[in-house]
Amino acid sequence: MSMALETPGLLSLAAGFTDNKTLPVGTVRDAVEALARSSADPETLQYGTNQGRPGLRRLLATKLAALEPTLDPEVLTRGTLVTNGSQQALYLAMQVLCDPGDIVLVDRPSYFVFLEMLAGLGVQARSLPLDDAGRIDGAALRQLLAAMEARGETKRLKAVYFVSYFSNPSARSLDEAEKIAVAEALGERDLIVPVLEDAAYRDLYFRQPYAARSVLSLPAWDAFPKFYLSTLTKSFATGLKVGYGFCSDRAWLEKMLHVKGHHDFGTANFSQAVFETVLANGGFEAQLARIRPAYEVKMRALHGTLLSEGLRDLGWSWPEPTGGIYLWLKTPPALDTSMNAAFCQACVREGVLYVPGDLCFGDEPPRHFARLSFGVLDEAALAVAARRFVTVALRFA
Amino acid sequence: MSMALETPGLLSLAAGFTDNKTLPVGTVRDAVEALARSSADPETLQYGTNQGRPGLRRLLATKLAALEPTLDPEVLTRGTLVTNGSQQALYLAMQVLCDPGDIVLVDRPSYFVFLEMLAGLGVQARSLPLDDAGRIDGAALRQLLAAMEARGETKRLKAVYFVSYFSNPSARSLDEAEKIAVAEALGERDLIVPVLEDAAYRDLYFRQPYAARSVLSLPAWDAFPKFYLSTLTKSFATGLKVGYGFCSDRAWLEKMLHVKGHHDFGTANFSQAVFETVLANGGFEAQLARIRPAYEVKMRALHGTLLSEGLRDLGWSWPEPTGGIYLWLKTPPALDTSMNAAFCQACVREGVLYVPGDLCFGDEPPRHFARLSFGVLDEAALAVAARRFVTVALRFA
Repeated sequence: MSMALETPGLLSLAAGFTDNKTLPVGTVRDAVEALARSSADPETLQYGTNQGRPGLRRLLATKLAALEPTLDPEVLTRGTLVTNGSQQALYLAMQVLCDPGDIVLVDRPSYFVFLEMLAGLGVQARSLPLDDAGRIDGAALRQLLAAMEARGETKRLKAVYFVSYFSNPSARSLDEAEKIAVAEALGERDLIVPVLEDAAYRDLYFRQPYAARSVLSLPAWDAFPKFYLSTLTKSFATGLKVGYGFCSDRAWLEKMLHVKGHHDFGTANFSQAVFETVLANGGFEAQLARIRPAYEVKMRALHGTLLSEGLRDLGWSWPEPTGGIYLWLKTPPALDTSMNAAFCQACVREGVLYVPGDLCFGDEPPRHFARLSFGVLDEAALAVAARRFVTVALRFA
Repeated sequence: MSMALETPGLLSLAAGFTDNKTLPVGTVRDAVEALARSSADPETLQYGTNQGRPGLRRLLATKLAALEPTLDPEVLTRGTLVTNGSQQALYLAMQVLCDPGDIVLVDRPSYFVFLEMLAGLGVQARSLPLDDAGRIDGAALRQLLAAMEARGETKRLKAVYFVSYFSNPSARSLDEAEKIAVAEALGERDLIVPVLEDAAYRDLYFRQPYAARSVLSLPAWDAFPKFYLSTLTKSFATGLKVGYGFCSDRAWLEKMLHVKGHHDFGTANFSQAVFETVLANGGFEAQLARIRPAYEVKMRALHGTLLSEGLRDLGWSWPEPTGGIYLWLKTPPALDTSMNAAFCQACVREGVLYVPGDLCFGDEPPRHFARLSFGVLDEAALAVAARRFVTVALRFA
């Protein structure tokens, strides 16, 4: 991927990178200056703690409680773990929950780096079934769980994972009803397994937050151990790599802290202090206010060019996103856009990259989806890339 | 530990933290300003690569090749892995080499966080035997390996680990002859196992570098897979948490990169860019030049007060360090300074903490060592802490 990105002329709609032009260079510089001025005790350049800076954890808790007012910021603060991006939060959660051969339920499609990590740990992914409208199907999930129980598999079911806001890769958000359906189907069989809700893109709405509570405040999930995780850097500056999670279950959290102590005994204290500063002084929200419309404009450049070049007329379909950085395209019948398909190779030759959708499924991968990101390229480049993509699509029409 | 540090009046000679007063606040601020000014493309705030910034890897390679001129900077650059502190380098190395029940040879004493990590992975530590002068004993190692082979254990021997410069905890450095003796004893039995040389404190000499080459340029180790690891942050600013390692073995490196891709897909690009800046502009070396004499002064404050208060007269002994941040004390006969001993509890009551030496051994822990750090406290506090320690020692004399 990084090699491809450096190839002149090749335009990547594949990388989940973020917009370069709007990166908060001045905000970060000002935060570092403020830290340098304020530190009679320069503790921000010293070791921090394994769990994360208490002040940062409190700000993160307050931020979440503002969205979900039934949550207690004190409880959230105690349950917060600061990590090296949300990726490490996912890794720690899986490392302490799963042994090789175990099973994790995942959304369909799901985040492919998570799926690769499961494969690396020898863990099987099993998809949450969808209905015809593309939403989680509680009845089909009941059937799946019954079949798993009949095969003796439910004792190896160790967790449920979904990306619930402006998802990578589908750009779709989960309704409360879908989340509740999962809890009910599991609860009916006394499968009170840990749930991981990945809210990495929750801040990245274009106009308004997606109105669905997280599992942390949905009563249907009360009995379940919950880990709600997100990142500060996807929406601000990926180069700083600070993620976090709130864990509702003390024993689970302690296990993750134990392993984190062995990984690195704490995420870089200085990077955490930068976020503590920009969350406290409004710099973080100001940056979000700047990038939300910028991403909407970029979405329109990609989406609009695909439309105006006639991709829908060729039988392709996709929803228009209301947040995130992805378009999730479904091909016309019988067109294969998977990793090794002729279409994919033709796109590379045409100078445009996308993520073949088959990489984004825990099991039974379909071959007719494509993930296109409008995160990294500017509007002009997005339009060129979109035209190249449609050029190839015309050839395969 | 962190709770103890916040207790007023309690002085910690236990924490391996570094000096607060000399932290490079201005150097870091200037580096961030320079990055902000120079970045027409603010890529330092964007995702980096999994292996680490090429420019940083090149600077690290050049730095090591200056100490060991037979090494090829190009080869080193390709073999470098940038990590979340040297701790993650250790973790990745062990994670890909070892399964539960495997055995790793370690120095005696050894770095206790590494030993805890081995325990967490279910891996056994076995000590490299020492002679009466406290140096690695090649003949005794041959006997140990013979005994292990007789017990069928050598097939589970997966690595050798030692801290070779101004070690944590012993402050001692390994001679080339000791390193060579280990390679020869292993080689004689065709035990060509990977070696991890932990050089975290190599830069932290007081007056001159310790004149011993690393395993990377000792011909005795030619046939062995080698991972030489260190950190940029112990000697500069622990809050930035950037470590690195040079791996001589492509297959081993690829495995570590694969797992790092799952942990976090790359150490924070921005922190790496800060180090790239200060290594390139001389700020890193200037900081070392500032702290080396400062640590020597602090060593003298602790060492000198222990001497002037009469600790040696009570039968305690320890070498005077020439680098690092630790004193490694041996008690008089029959005095027990281990974790649960009355001496240790008396020190807490007297308001001084140390690391009980028994925590620092892979096997057969003796109970008559104590690690005292002069890293974090200032000279006045070190003198007070030393007096408290001797007060307790007098009570047990």
